[in-house]
Amino acid sequence: MPKVAIAGAGLVGALNACYFAQRGWDVEVYEYRRDIRTMEHVPGRSINLALSYRGKCALEAIGLKDYIVSQGVELHARLVHNKDGKTFSRQPYGQPGERSGNESVQWTARSLQRFSLMHGFFFEHKVKSIDLEKKELIVVDEKEVEIRVKADLVVACDGAHSAVRRSLSTQTKFDYSQEYIEHGYIELNILPKNDEYALEPNVFHLWPRGHFTLIALANRNKTFTVTIFAPFSEFEKKMSTPQDVEVFFRENFPDAFELLGRNHLLNTFRTVPPQLLISVKSLLKLQCRPHHFGDFVLLTGDAAHAMVPFYGQGMNCGFEDCLVLSETLDACNDDIAKALSMYSEKRVKDAHIINDLAMYNYEELKDLVNHPSYKLRKRLDLFLNRFFPKLWIPLYSMVSFTRIPYHKVIENRKWQDGILTKIKYSTVTVTTLAALFCCVHFARQRGMLN
Amino acid sequence: MPKVAIAGAGLVGALNACYFAQRGWDVEVYEYRRDIRTMEHVPGRSINLALSYRGKCALEAIGLKDYIVSQGVELHARLVHNKDGKTFSRQPYGQPGERSGNESVQWTARSLQRFSLMHGFFFEHKVKSIDLEKKELIVVDEKEVEIRVKADLVVACDGAHSAVRRSLSTQTKFDYSQEYIEHGYIELNILPKNDEYALEPNVFHLWPRGHFTLIALANRNKTFTVTIFAPFSEFEKKMSTPQDVEVFFRENFPDAFELLGRNHLLNTFRTVPPQLLISVKSLLKLQCRPHHFGDFVLLTGDAAHAMVPFYGQGMNCGFEDCLVLSETLDACNDDIAKALSMYSEKRVKDAHIINDLAMYNYEELKDLVNHPSYKLRKRLDLFLNRFFPKLWIPLYSMVSFTRIPYHKVIENRKWQDGILTKIKYSTVTVTTLAALFCCVHFARQRGMLN
Repeated sequence: MPKVAIAGAGLVGALNACYFAQRGWDVEVYEYRRDIRTMEHVPGRSINLALSYRGKCALEAIGLKDYIVSQGVELHARLVHNKDGKTFSRQPYGQPGERSGNESVQWTARSLQRFSLMHGFFFEHKVKSIDLEKKELIVVDEKEVEIRVKADLVVACDGAHSAVRRSLSTQTKFDYSQEYIEHGYIELNILPKNDEYALEPNVFHLWPRGHFTLIALANRNKTFTVTIFAPFSEFEKKMSTPQDVEVFFRENFPDAFELLGRNHLLNTFRTVPPQLLISVKSLLKLQCRPHHFGDFVLLTGDAAHAMVPFYGQGMNCGFEDCLVLSETLDACNDDIAKALSMYSEKRVKDAHIINDLAMYNYEELKDLVNHPSYKLRKRLDLFLNRFFPKLWIPLYSMVSFTRIPYHKVIENRKWQDGILTKIKYSTVTVTTLAALFCCVHFARQRGMLN
Repeated sequence: MPKVAIAGAGLVGALNACYFAQRGWDVEVYEYRRDIRTMEHVPGRSINLALSYRGKCALEAIGLKDYIVSQGVELHARLVHNKDGKTFSRQPYGQPGERSGNESVQWTARSLQRFSLMHGFFFEHKVKSIDLEKKELIVVDEKEVEIRVKADLVVACDGAHSAVRRSLSTQTKFDYSQEYIEHGYIELNILPKNDEYALEPNVFHLWPRGHFTLIALANRNKTFTVTIFAPFSEFEKKMSTPQDVEVFFRENFPDAFELLGRNHLLNTFRTVPPQLLISVKSLLKLQCRPHHFGDFVLLTGDAAHAMVPFYGQGMNCGFEDCLVLSETLDACNDDIAKALSMYSEKRVKDAHIINDLAMYNYEELKDLVNHPSYKLRKRLDLFLNRFFPKLWIPLYSMVSFTRIPYHKVIENRKWQDGILTKIKYSTVTVTTLAALFCCVHFARQRGMLN
């Protein structure tokens, strides 16, 4: 059986390991963090992510979907919080009563690592580079000894700052771009109130305020993970002292402020001005082409397409990568060279599209959701979807609740836009013609024409 | 005096060394190639480049302009060769009789290295990375021994694949993009004919043919360096066998074909199909932001902004970098931290603009020069320039014959476009009004109105 060396045991690396183990390949995973699989308490942050249909399909193919979904909280609408702190507007993801398929899941890579395989993981082994000629993955172990791992295939899942990608990016023709977005975020928490959720759990809470926004997602332990997104300049200008932070939150998110609590808010911000921007995490948008190198290396997940978090598709797209890779290897009868080039051919354009869409969705979350034309379009989409459920799927639903390839999602959306424009112009034309007809008719009646 | 370590002794590295030596700084230059300064014959290719006003200014400031210009051939117009191989159209760079200031120069980095300083150069020393914290440039000498060079400033001039840039790109917020253009080029030569230039020497020869193009630049030794630019697909489809190459050149560039000679042409192409695309050189477009890291490292030349060669500004922009750096250090009284951030602030946007312009100019060279509207605009620009020589400078002239910052070049061009659009609409309005007036006058005369 062929041997695959996987760089990185994060969510995508661990899922890839599951797939290759199921395939019967010889699997080795190299990860620089230590082994958290048997630990009682995992140090560091867990990640709160929305699991949508693409991610679920990828988990289902290896029998993990139900377990992971059972850890999540279902989401079936957006709830927009107005500035008065008292009124809301609800924007359902789908038709009434329909399960949306979006879940808010709080987990760590451990859940997947435990399922993939207990041997074959090499923790505290830092991936260094690739020797494309000798077909070796070069890693450094915990004693700083360099090890050269022979393999038939390397799958790089070592994240946005991928060492594999960096070591190869100058060796071949490789288009690449990374862009730090001038917006950052800080994470906060809302604790349970009388042992119950302090806010409605099954919705995506949103406080859109023009050029900045706050969101909240429920966790199974009845807490909410709350995130504020804003330009760095806004953090600097409006949130650099405890007084400023309090005023800012009271003014813009009065209801959230009450639930977060003044102490927690101010502690989290650690309000010494020069340090503020260190605690603000930055956003990165990263794209490359191709995703493979020769017949030996494939980039998946953030290593290939780190995106801003505004469509909740970063992990889902990474999970779908694993599924697409598996499907492609099936289609090519495990011919690695053929599969890698076919995978790149297919996946690069999809990754570029969702990457751009994620950036665009920030506009929606910050501002657009409040615009009448946006709301009208949402309602129109849902209305048309009720009558043509297969033909007319709203953009958000195509991305989150189907496996339509991302580039086809955009093609469909353009087709929908074209139809709506035609309808608009036809309506204008018909109305104008009708008005003209009435005028003529009226003039005739009065004997002004004959 | 502060110490500067320069990575790379190419054209930009050697010029930077001249500037810092003149400034009285302690200068060390690290270069992985061997020392060519005292060699009779320099192995490898010399480079044929157009030296324009920006480059000349940078050379003048250290007293090198006259020497380098004396090695060049002046260019004062484009000469467009038509497909019949017999007719031409001439597009002067400036007003008749005016010196354009563009020179075709064939040289190597040696010319500058010889002038900069004879000691302080460390050849066969490969730059590896930067230690930003300890302020060290890490190099590997010819015996593979690692040396850590302490310095007050590192100026990276180590080209498009800069090791300095790579070692820092993941450490800080750094926007970066590299894109391989799907077009490549092959270089050819036209030898002297009876000891004389085989073509007119003082013009830029151009054979624009839609999606591919041929150019020729004179050298002092009476040869011409000829370059064909085309999409890789065109090389593959139309130039993969000797027969194909001959047919292609005879059909598209009949006059150039005669002068190049069949043997030279076919030998250069080395016509085994699978190897063809290896001999075709590829084009890279590279941008980043910022150009500096902390108060220690500055990227200049191709390390900061490798561009496609279609505006002949790659070297000129790199040379101007040296001059701008020197001017900025002057303005900041050698305060390195202040100078680096001021340099980035100023230079990044200029580098982005010329990078995009260089890409756009390919369209001109391939095709636009043949379009009537393009020719009309060129004539109109020259006409207006004759009457308003300071106010109305054509785009090409602003880029090539002035030191107007590239971003201001674009602002001026937009202003010019705005004026021309207004003139166009005013002309239409005046003409329409005049026509109306005539109609009314005519109707009155005939007694149709009273």
